[in-house]
Amino acid sequence: MKRQAHEVAIPALLEVGDQVLSNFGMLLCKAGFSRIVLCFGEGIRPLCEPQIVQSLTEQAQLEVLDNRDVLDNSLEAIAGTAFSLPARTEVIVGIGGGKGLDIAKYIAFLNGLPFISVPTSVAHDGFASSGCSLYVQGRRTSVPARMPYGILVDLGLVRNSPVQFLYSGLGDILSKIPAVFDWRFEESLGATRVNDFAVMMAKKSVNSIVRMPYTDIREFFFIKEIVDSLTLSGIAMEIAGSSAPASGSEHLISHALDQLVERPQLHGIQVGVASYLMCLVQEHRVERVRKFLDETGFFDFVAALGMKRDDFEQAVTLAPSIKPSRRTYLHLPEMREKALHLLRSDETLQRILA
Amino acid sequence: MKRQAHEVAIPALLEVGDQVLSNFGMLLCKAGFSRIVLCFGEGIRPLCEPQIVQSLTEQAQLEVLDNRDVLDNSLEAIAGTAFSLPARTEVIVGIGGGKGLDIAKYIAFLNGLPFISVPTSVAHDGFASSGCSLYVQGRRTSVPARMPYGILVDLGLVRNSPVQFLYSGLGDILSKIPAVFDWRFEESLGATRVNDFAVMMAKKSVNSIVRMPYTDIREFFFIKEIVDSLTLSGIAMEIAGSSAPASGSEHLISHALDQLVERPQLHGIQVGVASYLMCLVQEHRVERVRKFLDETGFFDFVAALGMKRDDFEQAVTLAPSIKPSRRTYLHLPEMREKALHLLRSDETLQRILA
Amino acid sequence: MKRQAHEVAIPALLEVGDQVLSNFGMLLCKAGFSRIVLCFGEGIRPLCEPQIVQSLTEQAQLEVLDNRDVLDNSLEAIAGTAFSLPARTEVIVGIGGGKGLDIAKYIAFLNGLPFISVPTSVAHDGFASSGCSLYVQGRRTSVPARMPYGILVDLGLVRNSPVQFLYSGLGDILSKIPAVFDWRFEESLGATRVNDFAVMMAKKSVNSIVRMPYTDIREFFFIKEIVDSLTLSGIAMEIAGSSAPASGSEHLISHALDQLVERPQLHGIQVGVASYLMCLVQEHRVERVRKFLDETGFFDFVAALGMKRDDFEQAVTLAPSIKPSRRTYLHLPEMREKALHLLRSDETLQRILA
Amino acid sequence: MKRQAHEVAIPALLEVGDQVLSNFGMLLCKAGFSRIVLCFGEGIRPLCEPQIVQSLTEQAQLEVLDNRDVLDNSLEAIAGTAFSLPARTEVIVGIGGGKGLDIAKYIAFLNGLPFISVPTSVAHDGFASSGCSLYVQGRRTSVPARMPYGILVDLGLVRNSPVQFLYSGLGDILSKIPAVFDWRFEESLGATRVNDFAVMMAKKSVNSIVRMPYTDIREFFFIKEIVDSLTLSGIAMEIAGSSAPASGSEHLISHALDQLVERPQLHGIQVGVASYLMCLVQEHRVERVRKFLDETGFFDFVAALGMKRDDFEQAVTLAPSIKPSRRTYLHLPEMREKALHLLRSDETLQRILA
Repeated sequence: MKRQAHEVAIPALLEVGDQVLSNFGMLLCKAGFSRIVLCFGEGIRPLCEPQIVQSLTEQAQLEVLDNRDVLDNSLEAIAGTAFSLPARTEVIVGIGGGKGLDIAKYIAFLNGLPFISVPTSVAHDGFASSGCSLYVQGRRTSVPARMPYGILVDLGLVRNSPVQFLYSGLGDILSKIPAVFDWRFEESLGATRVNDFAVMMAKKSVNSIVRMPYTDIREFFFIKEIVDSLTLSGIAMEIAGSSAPASGSEHLISHALDQLVERPQLHGIQVGVASYLMCLVQEHRVERVRKFLDETGFFDFVAALGMKRDDFEQAVTLAPSIKPSRRTYLHLPEMREKALHLLRSDETLQRILA
Repeated sequence: MKRQAHEVAIPALLEVGDQVLSNFGMLLCKAGFSRIVLCFGEGIRPLCEPQIVQSLTEQAQLEVLDNRDVLDNSLEAIAGTAFSLPARTEVIVGIGGGKGLDIAKYIAFLNGLPFISVPTSVAHDGFASSGCSLYVQGRRTSVPARMPYGILVDLGLVRNSPVQFLYSGLGDILSKIPAVFDWRFEESLGATRVNDFAVMMAKKSVNSIVRMPYTDIREFFFIKEIVDSLTLSGIAMEIAGSSAPASGSEHLISHALDQLVERPQLHGIQVGVASYLMCLVQEHRVERVRKFLDETGFFDFVAALGMKRDDFEQAVTLAPSIKPSRRTYLHLPEMREKALHLLRSDETLQRILA
Repeated sequence: MKRQAHEVAIPALLEVGDQVLSNFGMLLCKAGFSRIVLCFGEGIRPLCEPQIVQSLTEQAQLEVLDNRDVLDNSLEAIAGTAFSLPARTEVIVGIGGGKGLDIAKYIAFLNGLPFISVPTSVAHDGFASSGCSLYVQGRRTSVPARMPYGILVDLGLVRNSPVQFLYSGLGDILSKIPAVFDWRFEESLGATRVNDFAVMMAKKSVNSIVRMPYTDIREFFFIKEIVDSLTLSGIAMEIAGSSAPASGSEHLISHALDQLVERPQLHGIQVGVASYLMCLVQEHRVERVRKFLDETGFFDFVAALGMKRDDFEQAVTLAPSIKPSRRTYLHLPEMREKALHLLRSDETLQRILA
Repeated sequence: MKRQAHEVAIPALLEVGDQVLSNFGMLLCKAGFSRIVLCFGEGIRPLCEPQIVQSLTEQAQLEVLDNRDVLDNSLEAIAGTAFSLPARTEVIVGIGGGKGLDIAKYIAFLNGLPFISVPTSVAHDGFASSGCSLYVQGRRTSVPARMPYGILVDLGLVRNSPVQFLYSGLGDILSKIPAVFDWRFEESLGATRVNDFAVMMAKKSVNSIVRMPYTDIREFFFIKEIVDSLTLSGIAMEIAGSSAPASGSEHLISHALDQLVERPQLHGIQVGVASYLMCLVQEHRVERVRKFLDETGFFDFVAALGMKRDDFEQAVTLAPSIKPSRRTYLHLPEMREKALHLLRSDETLQRILA
């Protein structure tokens, strides 16, 4: 077989706007679907179900074959119901936050069906990536699934989600900066091979937003940019065939916090703080990252949460053991030392951590 | 067949840096190639041939099966020599500006072989797109080929290319702004269907650079950003399956100028001026575009070229007939009127056109 | 996106021969794998494990990262252990009969890893198809997975498997005849759209073998032909995107028997008898099918099993309810009547059923 | 990127039957096409044009944007007209024998458009393969293009084509036998790597037909089998990424005859005789091949043509130089000797060559 350019799966359908809910049926119809199963995440129905169902059935005359709640994100529970889809189901539409979308995405994956992702908040890149975070035998586990066939984002829904979700989204976007730096570092050690195209995509996803002018993080164009950035982040991972371009030492710290802390904060909030810390450790783009987190109000928001420096210290120490096969900055003892030192000395970290 | 996410061809290899020429052999070797045909564009050998050949044969012990000049970009000439490649050729490497790369890319396409694109200047997105511009029966014609397997950009080479090439590259990047606006406009008329993902990619390609801080357009990071932007532009077209996300009315003006003017300017120079004009017509992002073209020195550079307002007026009138099946802004008589009026009234255009 | 020819996944590696076990390491090495997880089905280790491990580690110096037994084919059990693979696993190799292969195939699917299928018997097309038969909440369920990356068949192993497995394989191959007829029938009713290429492949898979001269069904070339036929059957389903080209009313009868009978026979044995019955019902290629089942000894083998006509009668009645959305011959009451009548009147069926 | 099963392009549409011409519009309509360009080969219009156009425009209301003759198979001529297609052309339909189809296929390839292949005779596997045979600078040259999107074969048309075309098709099918043997031989010398799946497909394509019962080579099912076999042969080459599974030393002899003889016979006629010769040389499946060529009347047909033994002798000597990089049986001097000896001693060859 002759080698040709690399083939990458991208969403065939991407719609981000103010009228997505009201045009829902028309959008699915244009994409060629007619028999649909809806999966709503916890607490989502009241926000948008009537509008979606009306648009599907009245506006576009599509068949909703099933309309189910997806609440339990254990693989056991998902597997138990995934194979009871109505015959002739053509597409799974998931509407929800991270958890609901992950369940619906996995149901689609297990059935080999296309998945339409309808995020009600944009707290991380899960709505646009091929992976899922599920519970397997009681442990939170990242499992591969497949890139969504479509991503439909109603900005009205997302803008009305609690502000911590937006800050979480920003934190997850920023993590590309230390993550790519870690990945290149691992390559320099001969531990992996970086995919340059994935790096470029990951960088574009963050550079485009950190350089964007805005007055309010809830304004239309800024939220649209967040959605685009997180989507590009998902594509970057798809190109790489791994999470490496979007997840480095800063994600390990967040995973460690999830294990250490009784009530962890939102993924992207933890990741955002850890990204700032790792930029300090890597001595890489610190000014840019600090300025952005400062001006968007991220640091002020975090300062009010009462996250503890102690927890971060333990997380830094635990981080390398989360993925022992990687070789990020935090896998070097001297870099962990540096991180611990910075946790106690950096002014911003002093201010935002208790 | 169940529908899955859209598969898109992207370059498997992307390297942009200061050491590309000296690591040339190693980069091809890592990509798994061992029997190579080199194609040099006009005037390119003195710039880099010894370094490339040495790196391939001494550093990496690869076989250079053939080392040819590619000068004539008529399809007849290309076809005449394309099928005389040595047996067992694995990859075609093209080194040159737009013309040389197009010829080499087409030789690879006709043989079903992977193509490595090594631009010596970045005057437009041809080094990263699947299309070629060739002469067919004496007429310049855009023909489809295939996305490069790899893109290797030595920033030393590119930085030393004449400054007009960089300005041309900037002009070509900016064209995404009116082009996407035209495309959406055509969709609103029911004349086409926009691919939202291609739009997003095209927008990222331009937003990332227009918001980038820099002090000199020849600095490393700025040139790298130009390369990235033009690469994303090529991908956007690949996703769309057409040139629409990267080429609207502003490109039609440039194509018209090519027909009208005895000695046309570089493609991206013409496109840059036309992009500014079309943003005025579309009343879309005018400030941003003007600021960028002003601060980068593009307008000053253009002002010294002596391009004529008369030619632009004729080009605006001719533009819609270049692609009669499209429905851009310029396909409406009132918008052509508006453009003609702006050519005579806008202060910046007054300044830069003779 | 312009439409191009349909892309279909086929095994990249296919080796059928006498020396497969002894060349095992070399075969995986050539395919580019170096870190392997082995999964052995029940009772399989004694047959071939030492040879495989020695070939992998001594001959080819590959790393066997894990060497596990796969015994429980409930989805719950598989999911519980699937995500504990060693980091950097590159490929899952499954060695076993239908059940062991299905488990290993699903572990690979859940992890997004390539799967190498090493059947120790060829009782049905599972070793070469993208689907799996697993227990989900206590019910046997057909679930989609992915086409094996490679299929390695050691004819020594397969030839020494009990003869009922070979007869089962033959029965499964023959089922393409009534299955394709059912599929075309459903299309004539407007109930589905047949994929002509899948039909062609399914037909070739069966025609090639029913027309083959042989003296003993255990001879090298005949078994090789069985393997090829079952592989083509897997590809036919992949092309179709469903099991339709390989599974029609005759498979429904077998599924019904599985529910009705305390100790069902091997899948392909049941399917073989049901295929003969359905050819009678469809009045399609009866002579060819009868001659083949007669001359290979299939009918004699079945006659000794004591399968009951009563069970088949109940199965015919139950069959359409197994897949209520299909429209096979057995979904018509008059055809079920005809089948019941034939069960009591056809001489061959009289002879082989008790 | 994780490795998955190999992706192969196959025709999305395959229809072989008695009603293809009368259902032509409906078949293209179902496939989703609405704007079509027709290309008729030399002498083909009178056979079927009115029926095709009527079916397209009246039955299915499709738009025939252009209806052209394709007569000149020089690359220069094709390139000169290929880019003058009407805007918005969706698909190229080629109707003709080998030459007309090759031209139409190449027009589609140069434009990146899907191609529908409508053979009026089945003299070789060109209607179902990705390659084309064109004249480049006056020399017949095999060039790569792309697998047809669809293959539509009206058996009425094909059955009424002169009988030499059917015999040519049979000869081309039989060539898989020595070709695969040559390919495996080259692998045993370390000169190449065989793709086992392509081998299997190539073998099925020939075994299925040589074992088929028939009474007349013009009967419906036999011609259908020829079409299927040649289609599988095209797929086998696609899987292999080269012509090796379908073209070995026997094809080299035929290519050599094309150079040596003033008026060469049909490709498949020459290939059929050469295949028999090479089976003798390889001492491989001689009985089967002889029996088939005898019973179908191929040998009798050839005997009447007056092909000369002298020409074959020269062709055997010239053959290896046609593809010097290959290592077929004929690349060994002792095998060429053996072939020359057999040309003078084998009874059948004595009878059919003058």
